[in-house]
Amino acid sequence: MDLHDIPTPALVVDADVFEANLALMAERIPGRRLRPHVKAHKCTAMAAAQVRHGHTTFTCATTREMIGMATAGVGDDLLLANEVLDIDRLRAVTEAGERHGVAMTVAVDSAETVRAAASAGISSVLVDVNVGLPRCGVVPDDAGRIADLARSAGLEVRGVMGYEGHLQMVAETAERTERVRAAMLLLRRAHGAVGGDIVSAGGTGTHDLHRFDADDPAAVTEVQAGSYALMDSQYSSLDQGFGQALTVLGTVISTTTGGERRGWAVADVGLKALGMDHGNPSIDGATVWFCSDEHLTFGTDGPLPAVGDRVRVVPAHIDPTVARHREMWVVRGSTVVDRWAVDLRHW
Amino acid sequence: MDLHDIPTPALVVDADVFEANLALMAERIPGRRLRPHVKAHKCTAMAAAQVRHGHTTFTCATTREMIGMATAGVGDDLLLANEVLDIDRLRAVTEAGERHGVAMTVAVDSAETVRAAASAGISSVLVDVNVGLPRCGVVPDDAGRIADLARSAGLEVRGVMGYEGHLQMVAETAERTERVRAAMLLLRRAHGAVGGDIVSAGGTGTHDLHRFDADDPAAVTEVQAGSYALMDSQYSSLDQGFGQALTVLGTVISTTTGGERRGWAVADVGLKALGMDHGNPSIDGATVWFCSDEHLTFGTDGPLPAVGDRVRVVPAHIDPTVARHREMWVVRGSTVVDRWAVDLRHW
Repeated sequence: MDLHDIPTPALVVDADVFEANLALMAERIPGRRLRPHVKAHKCTAMAAAQVRHGHTTFTCATTREMIGMATAGVGDDLLLANEVLDIDRLRAVTEAGERHGVAMTVAVDSAETVRAAASAGISSVLVDVNVGLPRCGVVPDDAGRIADLARSAGLEVRGVMGYEGHLQMVAETAERTERVRAAMLLLRRAHGAVGGDIVSAGGTGTHDLHRFDADDPAAVTEVQAGSYALMDSQYSSLDQGFGQALTVLGTVISTTTGGERRGWAVADVGLKALGMDHGNPSIDGATVWFCSDEHLTFGTDGPLPAVGDRVRVVPAHIDPTVARHREMWVVRGSTVVDRWAVDLRHW
Repeated sequence: MDLHDIPTPALVVDADVFEANLALMAERIPGRRLRPHVKAHKCTAMAAAQVRHGHTTFTCATTREMIGMATAGVGDDLLLANEVLDIDRLRAVTEAGERHGVAMTVAVDSAETVRAAASAGISSVLVDVNVGLPRCGVVPDDAGRIADLARSAGLEVRGVMGYEGHLQMVAETAERTERVRAAMLLLRRAHGAVGGDIVSAGGTGTHDLHRFDADDPAAVTEVQAGSYALMDSQYSSLDQGFGQALTVLGTVISTTTGGERRGWAVADVGLKALGMDHGNPSIDGATVWFCSDEHLTFGTDGPLPAVGDRVRVVPAHIDPTVARHREMWVVRGSTVVDRWAVDLRHW
């Protein structure tokens, strides 16, 4: 089957670029030092490829991702790096872990989340610490109290996590380096009060700024990163060596020539095929004008494409784009070599 | 079952507001003068409610929507108001129409789309005319040529459609009125060259500006509108009498007090539960700071909510929000009265 036979819009993964991304990251942060985040691809086949590159611990953002990964038998140690109060769903996490022999750890940052985890039979937790991003996580000075609460509730406290999400896109490397270090010093201070073996942090944007040397006071024990596997136009701007492995394939369904802007073309890659929170996607050699539900209108530098031509659209943000699709088509050159389900979607 | 028992994030439809929206629109544009657009809700149960309000013709944006509607037995005359070149999918549209006795009409705007429709056994088409939005549609002066091509290919040409999407959100009513009229004069000029019984146009933003009197040179025969059934914060700004029937229900999973901004709360309604192309969603009495994959961080005017509290999030754009979910929970007050599948998703 050829690229040209894929019904559009469709997620297309370049197998070689994907493999090169995994190899590069595994070389930089090998084995259990990297806890790949599955929220970026929501695909157990991709997670299995990450296992082949030596990573067997994974980060999840939803109970669905935790349960799906355990059920698929991918990974031996899963972290739900998110606060969940839904006891039925947490209980299903516990059961999936027990049934499939996978360690299931969840993040907590309050008395309520500790109580929910304990009620659901969850055995171990990380204390989620706020290191500067106004989102979840307890203030560093309160982390020890949450750890105590968790231990009193019978939970094993494995350590801390703290996501410096506000620093992922700091453009200046020197500034990013310095601010990540300051955030990790905060996290380590909280870890001093919490205890446990794990200090988990990071993302694709900061993965190369973390240190693992035990005597560095800002060191972590593991880095969470997800987007590096597929990439998007936002992270590409950081120039970290990862290639664009995923595009949304579209078909040109209409063209109009003439007018002051020399005409435009329309592809069938619209808002329902894209995550739009980071703005418009991009197309090589073209300017994206706007997206509608099922359309993407674009102008070109050179001649317009013909009706029926295929276009490769690069999403501005990978995670919410992938979550709109049921499957990914894996290609080598223009040959389709595999088809993977996006099987960890929804909640 | 109560609102509080719904697992979050979840689409919640207020049954009374939804019914009132359908009743108001059916009063303004009764029966076959309205061709409701199913792309807004992607739900055959909602389309069935529109049938109960007297509308039996529907607009679709994808072949999936066409096939799903025909298979569910909802509507007797379906229009694919979009250009499609995929002959396999168009053939499935033809077959679904024949099997279920539903008229299936598709839009064409080029020789290629005419050829695809004819090859797939589609029996009737509308000529899609560009009335000012730079997207699909043939320039008005070329509409007659496309109609001739279609007739030569053995297709019945039922008339024209032209979507004035660029005018939906023109804030000034006088300006919106005048520009819609100019666009419809263009469409009618094209119709003069095309022939057929149908002149189809409009959307929720302009639904009340269309005229049906045969001797008005800007009159149409039917209006396409979808968002009116559920509404979103963008269309609400036009103040057309429709109520907000759909919200995304979330749970507060974390709060942080103190700091210069008096603290914030985090709900589990993130980018993967929302369409973000029109910007952030809104929450009554709160300010949305930003959304992440599975989080929405917000500040409040009054005291912060408690962890575990529920929040109702109003999407800025309804269509791409609904398409992220598998089901809608229908409530009356705080009682769950039904659960409808979003069964027309994907392509």
